[in-house]
Amino acid sequence: MIPKDPAYEARVRESFSRQSHMATLGARIVFIAPGEVHLALPFARQFCQQNGFMHAGAIASVADSANGYAAYTLAPPGTDVLAVEFKINLLAPAQGEGFLACGRVLRSGRTLTVCQADVFSTGTAERTMIATMLSTIIVRPLERGATGAV
Amino acid sequence: MIPKDPAYEARVRESFSRQSHMATLGARIVFIAPGEVHLALPFARQFCQQNGFMHAGAIASVADSANGYAAYTLAPPGTDVLAVEFKINLLAPAQGEGFLACGRVLRSGRTLTVCQADVFSTGTAERTMIATMLSTIIVRPLERGATGAV
Amino acid sequence: MIPKDPAYEARVRESFSRQSHMATLGARIVFIAPGEVHLALPFARQFCQQNGFMHAGAIASVADSANGYAAYTLAPPGTDVLAVEFKINLLAPAQGEGFLACGRVLRSGRTLTVCQADVFSTGTAERTMIATMLSTIIVRPLERGATGAV
Amino acid sequence: MIPKDPAYEARVRESFSRQSHMATLGARIVFIAPGEVHLALPFARQFCQQNGFMHAGAIASVADSANGYAAYTLAPPGTDVLAVEFKINLLAPAQGEGFLACGRVLRSGRTLTVCQADVFSTGTAERTMIATMLSTIIVRPLERGATGAV
Repeated sequence: MIPKDPAYEARVRESFSRQSHMATLGARIVFIAPGEVHLALPFARQFCQQNGFMHAGAIASVADSANGYAAYTLAPPGTDVLAVEFKINLLAPAQGEGFLACGRVLRSGRTLTVCQADVFSTGTAERTMIATMLSTIIVRPLERGATGAV
Repeated sequence: MIPKDPAYEARVRESFSRQSHMATLGARIVFIAPGEVHLALPFARQFCQQNGFMHAGAIASVADSANGYAAYTLAPPGTDVLAVEFKINLLAPAQGEGFLACGRVLRSGRTLTVCQADVFSTGTAERTMIATMLSTIIVRPLERGATGAV
Repeated sequence: MIPKDPAYEARVRESFSRQSHMATLGARIVFIAPGEVHLALPFARQFCQQNGFMHAGAIASVADSANGYAAYTLAPPGTDVLAVEFKINLLAPAQGEGFLACGRVLRSGRTLTVCQADVFSTGTAERTMIATMLSTIIVRPLERGATGAV
Repeated sequence: MIPKDPAYEARVRESFSRQSHMATLGARIVFIAPGEVHLALPFARQFCQQNGFMHAGAIASVADSANGYAAYTLAPPGTDVLAVEFKINLLAPAQGEGFLACGRVLRSGRTLTVCQADVFSTGTAERTMIATMLSTIIVRPLERGATGAV
């Protein structure tokens, strides 16, 4: 996959730095390549569900951002990306020292990009896939980025 | 819809109080009835995406909990609920003073419950539906609740 | 919801008549209004799964078309619609004399329309919702309609 | 992945032979292994949408069956499988001589199995992925197989 913007990595990092939700969750970028972004998320007690596992919404948050930024690596200059919808299957309880959300582009179109993120638990002997997300993402000119109207 | 556990409300509130992620987001229960739970979420700067709207993952978090607890109102005593999967469509930017996630049961089965949550922005003149989520939830005996293996 | 094309009904009927899959399934339009299209599907033995219920893919076919044409009622003249993705929850076995797929627009945007179709079994004393589908649909200028590239 | 039923292949073929919808579509099994089933679907004019591509519902039908039978290869003896829900992203127009739906198990649990099917167009120089489906499938004792109540 060939990026349309040679400065794709700087653009992804700049946009990611503006996602306060990622900073709040303690998520950070660990890998960027054309069509692929991996985010690391530490386990944290304040984002859990009733049994002490990370809440599905916290896991979905990093999977959504991993997919969005995977799409953004292939977007032309002067554009923004926005998730249209996503679907996540929760495969195993979100426990472990941390999590890795690996987003990749399945199809990059003129208007829409489809991505999939697999989420793994890390820090244990065995790496377990705990979730997988399919996302549809829209690429839009930057001037419309602030309105969110698609 | 007739609850199988007359103490369903107390059970929902107790479980919700253990979801640290809801407390962190500032979400609270505003309505409980058999087959229906509404959660209120205030807008907060620390859970935003790159344009200053609430992150889709934060919105998905409250929609997921609203659906899970809507399912839980109809579950028998001695059971727990767990999201198997969900799909969310993001219909408008998540802006406003706050949000209301209204989860309701579409179908309550022996093993699986299907719910839908509509999410609205609040505090503005016009109430806007910003997202809708379809969820599949599994009802399990409590002793298996801690393992997450389904 | 106000149609942008006063001839929306004729346009929907003309396009539907070109969907050979609908004719093969025996599906027909029973209701058209701005933002809403209902399709009727008779039960037929040749579209079943292993237990003699209608196959989920046959049910998904009419739900997909109901949603697509609900979106099409609101599209401007000179455009075509294409399903980007859909998700369906199967709530009860697809048995009965027939089925009714009721598609309606949840949100109509410049580029994307989000629809939901509820599918009911008909011909029995009790009307049962057997499935619900959430769809994302893209509206495109007609000249690009034949390529399918979005 | 180790099948719990050594006769899994015969069981899959027997059940598939009872899916009249697959026979009607002309679909056939081209590969069976533990956790994986591939179905071939010829292009046919009677299952098309308005532009002459195969209808998304026809593509979804074979993807759904590929996933269901992939799950069935790993199910214990005396059980049946039923799709609970699925989500499909349509990546390219369904054109070509035929299609290959490759279903595989992502996670096999006590009650639920999660599968993904990638669908490719065949018969052209370049193999194109035209769709991908994520499915949740329930495994049930056979005696409940006929009721569809989950």
